[in-house]
Amino acid sequence: MSELNIGIVGLGRLGRRHALNLRDRIRGAQLVAACSPLDEELGWAAEQLPGVHRHHTLEAMLAEPQVQAVFLVTPTALHAEQIIACLRAGKHVFCEKPLALNVEDCQKVEAVAADYPQLKAMVGFVRRFDASYQDAAEKLQQGLVGQPYLLRSQTCDLNDENGFFVKFAPSSGGIFMDCSIHDIDLARWLLGSPKPVRVWATGTNALHPALADCGDVDNGVAMLEFADGKLACFYASRTQAHGHETLTEIFASAGRLSVGANPRANRVDISDAHGVRNECVQDFYQRFAEAFVSEAQHFVDAVLHNQPLALSLADATEATRIGLAITQALRSKQVVEL
Amino acid sequence: MSELNIGIVGLGRLGRRHALNLRDRIRGAQLVAACSPLDEELGWAAEQLPGVHRHHTLEAMLAEPQVQAVFLVTPTALHAEQIIACLRAGKHVFCEKPLALNVEDCQKVEAVAADYPQLKAMVGFVRRFDASYQDAAEKLQQGLVGQPYLLRSQTCDLNDENGFFVKFAPSSGGIFMDCSIHDIDLARWLLGSPKPVRVWATGTNALHPALADCGDVDNGVAMLEFADGKLACFYASRTQAHGHETLTEIFASAGRLSVGANPRANRVDISDAHGVRNECVQDFYQRFAEAFVSEAQHFVDAVLHNQPLALSLADATEATRIGLAITQALRSKQVVEL
Amino acid sequence: MSELNIGIVGLGRLGRRHALNLRDRIRGAQLVAACSPLDEELGWAAEQLPGVHRHHTLEAMLAEPQVQAVFLVTPTALHAEQIIACLRAGKHVFCEKPLALNVEDCQKVEAVAADYPQLKAMVGFVRRFDASYQDAAEKLQQGLVGQPYLLRSQTCDLNDENGFFVKFAPSSGGIFMDCSIHDIDLARWLLGSPKPVRVWATGTNALHPALADCGDVDNGVAMLEFADGKLACFYASRTQAHGHETLTEIFASAGRLSVGANPRANRVDISDAHGVRNECVQDFYQRFAEAFVSEAQHFVDAVLHNQPLALSLADATEATRIGLAITQALRSKQVVEL
Amino acid sequence: MSELNIGIVGLGRLGRRHALNLRDRIRGAQLVAACSPLDEELGWAAEQLPGVHRHHTLEAMLAEPQVQAVFLVTPTALHAEQIIACLRAGKHVFCEKPLALNVEDCQKVEAVAADYPQLKAMVGFVRRFDASYQDAAEKLQQGLVGQPYLLRSQTCDLNDENGFFVKFAPSSGGIFMDCSIHDIDLARWLLGSPKPVRVWATGTNALHPALADCGDVDNGVAMLEFADGKLACFYASRTQAHGHETLTEIFASAGRLSVGANPRANRVDISDAHGVRNECVQDFYQRFAEAFVSEAQHFVDAVLHNQPLALSLADATEATRIGLAITQALRSKQVVEL
Repeated sequence: MSELNIGIVGLGRLGRRHALNLRDRIRGAQLVAACSPLDEELGWAAEQLPGVHRHHTLEAMLAEPQVQAVFLVTPTALHAEQIIACLRAGKHVFCEKPLALNVEDCQKVEAVAADYPQLKAMVGFVRRFDASYQDAAEKLQQGLVGQPYLLRSQTCDLNDENGFFVKFAPSSGGIFMDCSIHDIDLARWLLGSPKPVRVWATGTNALHPALADCGDVDNGVAMLEFADGKLACFYASRTQAHGHETLTEIFASAGRLSVGANPRANRVDISDAHGVRNECVQDFYQRFAEAFVSEAQHFVDAVLHNQPLALSLADATEATRIGLAITQALRSKQVVEL
Repeated sequence: MSELNIGIVGLGRLGRRHALNLRDRIRGAQLVAACSPLDEELGWAAEQLPGVHRHHTLEAMLAEPQVQAVFLVTPTALHAEQIIACLRAGKHVFCEKPLALNVEDCQKVEAVAADYPQLKAMVGFVRRFDASYQDAAEKLQQGLVGQPYLLRSQTCDLNDENGFFVKFAPSSGGIFMDCSIHDIDLARWLLGSPKPVRVWATGTNALHPALADCGDVDNGVAMLEFADGKLACFYASRTQAHGHETLTEIFASAGRLSVGANPRANRVDISDAHGVRNECVQDFYQRFAEAFVSEAQHFVDAVLHNQPLALSLADATEATRIGLAITQALRSKQVVEL
Repeated sequence: MSELNIGIVGLGRLGRRHALNLRDRIRGAQLVAACSPLDEELGWAAEQLPGVHRHHTLEAMLAEPQVQAVFLVTPTALHAEQIIACLRAGKHVFCEKPLALNVEDCQKVEAVAADYPQLKAMVGFVRRFDASYQDAAEKLQQGLVGQPYLLRSQTCDLNDENGFFVKFAPSSGGIFMDCSIHDIDLARWLLGSPKPVRVWATGTNALHPALADCGDVDNGVAMLEFADGKLACFYASRTQAHGHETLTEIFASAGRLSVGANPRANRVDISDAHGVRNECVQDFYQRFAEAFVSEAQHFVDAVLHNQPLALSLADATEATRIGLAITQALRSKQVVEL
Repeated sequence: MSELNIGIVGLGRLGRRHALNLRDRIRGAQLVAACSPLDEELGWAAEQLPGVHRHHTLEAMLAEPQVQAVFLVTPTALHAEQIIACLRAGKHVFCEKPLALNVEDCQKVEAVAADYPQLKAMVGFVRRFDASYQDAAEKLQQGLVGQPYLLRSQTCDLNDENGFFVKFAPSSGGIFMDCSIHDIDLARWLLGSPKPVRVWATGTNALHPALADCGDVDNGVAMLEFADGKLACFYASRTQAHGHETLTEIFASAGRLSVGANPRANRVDISDAHGVRNECVQDFYQRFAEAFVSEAQHFVDAVLHNQPLALSLADATEATRIGLAITQALRSKQVVEL
């Protein structure tokens, strides 16, 4: 097989970016179908994705024999059932993170996937495909800084004055499921997938008190202990003033690696009355635009050449499991044992 | 009064630095006496502090009428009783941090000090006197970055391969009492002294497993919740490879201040086969040498001109109280309510 | 026209990169032909560029009616005649920098191009297409830092211990024509194309004394004065230890912009026994990989949609003219008037 | 001798700083006399320098037998004659830079000094005493980056909107004599005092056209060639928006050292709507405050212990000679041979 026919589901902001990457940037990818319940989104597809078949329902799209793989960029609540539907229709499937907001759904997906070993299924933990994170992972592998024992990772969003995300808070699973899920996956990946044993979390509402109505916070911190003694600390924020900052530090026996210490937008520095400064990336997509390409390329290559995926559904399940424990800790103010 | 006659107690490494500062750098200070039970330390005084009276006991030094103020640079276990002795002898007193390793001793000191309102007594939280921390505090005061809601602070020491500190671990009070006590004081200072309500902590032994014998760790992390919803996160480490790193970040509603993000030794950058790099300060003294001068100057000025001190014994008590709660959390793996 | 059929000439290291970009990354580009006198290069094309017609001579390739545009990635000495041949064959043409090593050849090209106004011809000053340089140019346009009066720009290559470039020195035109030509173009672009009036230059051979045989240096510095009083300073080096460093600073009445101050390879920082450090890009291609894509996309879009090019042949001529004057100044140790 | 009795001449802004350093910071220094023709300056001395004898003329001060050494912080035009007067009166002498604005005066001073070999005479090239420059010098000595071949150094002042310096331009000797004299001295020091052979220079008036009346510029660039092939480039500016920036880069065969790449005011970083930024030092004194202390301490120690000085009058003469050649090059637009 030298080309993979792909259908995409969900053409919101991130869905459109995936669609354009599949159209323009992914070698071996052929975007052949697009699906959305919304006319506005299909209208965008009609204009930007010429020749692509448009569908209002996943079922209709899955019925197309030419579709070999599906990209799901849909609300999290739909992920589990949609992945299962894709697999049962014999399609490879890529799904945006997180896999689900409860462990049962994750396990259901895993069980179905086990019935289709010839199909690839992957959840999009995009940071694993970022060049800087990959460089850090290689350096760890090579032992450049010795044995890691502590990882700190944060996902800090530029404050949205309109509080757009507040509306979505009730269905997002909370700040840790929405933002820190990436950091949790990074911790597992970079620390060698140790067994988590214990979490604690707390948080505050600095700028968006309305979040309290659904038990959420706009700034949350958490600590995670692993069975082998390794530690992880997480910070998630909706209220930064300077931009989007994804920062991960890995403390190891002979040194420390950090990824993203200054979220500079580019190589320009400005020296003026404000001092010496650089502008910052404004959102996660600006930060990870190339990683989204590498991620999709990795998935497409894995399908075309039947290569192993960089991460498994079990990885996604574990991230959800830890994320839920942290969320429970935030709400209970108690240590949660895993 | 235009000159303050000072006696110093304890001439170990840090004591000698205080002594030399008092000899050379502090306007209005006259170092007139030095005290140590160790001949070696008094020998150093004979050589470096000409004209200074030398004593083997604090009692003997306090008996000198010319001594108006005392600098205590002694083991923590002695602080409380020595401060009390100084006050009862009518001497102003500066004492190295922490005030004590239990709250009762702290309160005893406070009670005695209350009987001598004309005497100044201060614990040396030196970071409050560092130019960069002072700049950050002023910027917060001016509202440059809005209202602070989260402070993260870390004290990370260069790894000592000889594990010198392991020997002292049993009497140090543990990593949080020894290192994080500064960060705890900073959190209170920069967040406006809110009431602490809850802590959690964990840790690991990355390089010095012998610490486990006394319930200590070489890397510890902790989270602290305040009554007004503000948060603090602490990290203390004995095992850094690059140098001593004291870093504090204050997240506020309109921006973030950080102090010490790269612990550069000076203004030199090296571009060579290792990349673009800078060397780092190697210990807390290299980082805070000028702050020790400012601190001593502040104390001496406060005595000479009868001005208020920048921090009170109650501040020192509170830092000990929080530090002890964090230590208890580390050992119990439970949330500790304050 | 929605697709542009392109033939590429020259499949050395940079030619291959252009070819792969045209194959994979440029929307609207169809790579249909490749030309090289070398069997090894055509062999690479056979393997990597399936379906592309292969030619040993430019003439043969130009005879293909389907070829609508040509990318020239050939030795500089051939540029002028090859561009002219392409134009006379009715092909749009993109040519790597510099346009030529003498002004007469540049002017010949301009004269022929004037006869074919419907054909696009552009020299690849790739930095104009780099996102950071574009951001700097926009900030200047917006007046963020006021009126520029001085530009400093440097092109510093990682030292090649094999001295590969020494072999090519006799035909390269010297370090200023080979490296600084980009900086010269940047100066004209970012300062508003003022009229150059006077140059000074000097240089040294730090590591490659053999360069002296052809009057070249491995480190050269130059100053350029414009008629409106603006200034430019250039530095070109073959002997850096840390990587490839392209740095441009624009000093303006209300601030300074700099592009590339630390040539960091990515967002990873390492803190270890060497200090706090980052690795660096190792060559110009690693630095400008995305700019090569943007440049080719710009050219292809300009042809497909008949849009103006970002830079003219006259710009390329002027860069050559200034580069030659600087080279003459280096050799004569005299000020050269333009 | 364990204390050196010092008289200071000139109590303008910098003079007062020297006076306070001598009063408070310099071990072994005893400030006993102060001299100024201005009542206002002597009034300041009466208040800030209690016990110091005040004089309106140098002659009167030199007549005081107790004065053993003199600090001259006076207009450059007076330096030569005042140094000579001090030496003839049997006093050691420290003089602010530059030694003089013509080579003849420098040589006259050297000749007189040769008659008093027991007296120390030093010109204040303060950067040699800065901890970062000293670290760079030691790293060069140790061969950390191999053999240096090019030094670039700049002295860039924050723009003074009042154009205060414009008034002094006629007597300052021009921007290169006033500002670059330090960079010239650094080049000689760090490159091993090679013989200068040739200079080029140019400049522009970006914000202060009135400087043209006295042949001066507010931004000047220069290049200097040494007999051994080493090179130096200088940049001096009066018009920076972000602060005072003294930056020196030493390019060497195995790496590059730079001193002062970001003139950060302290260790605080601000992340807000302006990006990630740091404030900058605002003037040379903020940058070099500690170096002024080290410099004075060095001079006092050299006198007290009869130790060699770190730099000679010949060094100061050579800096003046090169500075004058650069100034001549700026005015003539010609290469000037030395």
